[in-house]
Amino acid sequence: MPRLILIAAQSLDGYISRHDQPGTDFCSEADAAFLASTLKDFDSLIFGRKTFDTLRQRILNATTRRFLRKILTRTPDAYRDLAQRDRVEFTDAAPADILADLESRGRQRCALLGGGEAYTRFLEAGLVDELWLTLEPRLFGSGTPLATRALDLAFTLDSTTPLTPDTLLLKYLPRR
Amino acid sequence: MPRLILIAAQSLDGYISRHDQPGTDFCSEADAAFLASTLKDFDSLIFGRKTFDTLRQRILNATTRRFLRKILTRTPDAYRDLAQRDRVEFTDAAPADILADLESRGRQRCALLGGGEAYTRFLEAGLVDELWLTLEPRLFGSGTPLATRALDLAFTLDSTTPLTPDTLLLKYLPRR
Repeated sequence: MPRLILIAAQSLDGYISRHDQPGTDFCSEADAAFLASTLKDFDSLIFGRKTFDTLRQRILNATTRRFLRKILTRTPDAYRDLAQRDRVEFTDAAPADILADLESRGRQRCALLGGGEAYTRFLEAGLVDELWLTLEPRLFGSGTPLATRALDLAFTLDSTTPLTPDTLLLKYLPRR
Repeated sequence: MPRLILIAAQSLDGYISRHDQPGTDFCSEADAAFLASTLKDFDSLIFGRKTFDTLRQRILNATTRRFLRKILTRTPDAYRDLAQRDRVEFTDAAPADILADLESRGRQRCALLGGGEAYTRFLEAGLVDELWLTLEPRLFGSGTPLATRALDLAFTLDSTTPLTPDTLLLKYLPRR
């Protein structure tokens, strides 16, 4: 199976978006630069339909053929016109089946980019091999949580990297 | 006014208790040891009534006279029998009035120990001088959030200290 790395930027209190505002405009430029840079080491991406919508034009206009993108939706047929085999694929398959499909097509390193529902489905399935959290120095008190349903998972801390004097990148591994 | 330091231990996703279980039994022993040790540098404590209930016997049996404890409740009269002047006081006063009272009685360094409602009231009032977060390497997906209402506060990172190889103590200052 490809190695699956959950990548998220969040407030100190665990929100990946602020209040009812979609997107990650609260994130530091350093986090955006980190994400753009690190994605060069990946060959596939997974994200939810809402995350796709916020990135839509950038994805559809992208010239790189590096990424096989899997977009999670309950209604993949509704996106048939936007799909491009090997680049932009819409799926309602189960997490394990998505990774098995990526494996069968030679993909080795996959970034799980959100949102909360997509993170939660792969966490619940026990398929996340690494958890990379950018911790922005904010408190929001409400918003989209990193995980949208109750679970109980333990990790070990692999590394701590300051992206700015105030923003930390924390990398965790699941405790098996 | 006394310096007010919010001290909390939380999961990576911002929960100060797991699911519907009160208390902090998910926290590392290292965090408990840190808290016991650091409280020696404080002369006053603030917490909510529910937090009082989980600590009740320990507080009422404590022999130290070091701490003036303010316990937030909408019904201080209901706790009249447990109150001990200068040691255990129940109050429904506003956050600023509580700190003014502590100041008038010579208290200089106060720890705000939770829970979520108590944290939120002092954060909303702009009265938190430092934010100390112990980040336990867990994901819960549900529980008591650090802040129980929407807010939008920014901080600067003051220090990062590992309490164990997996548990980080992060100290933040409000961005003024």
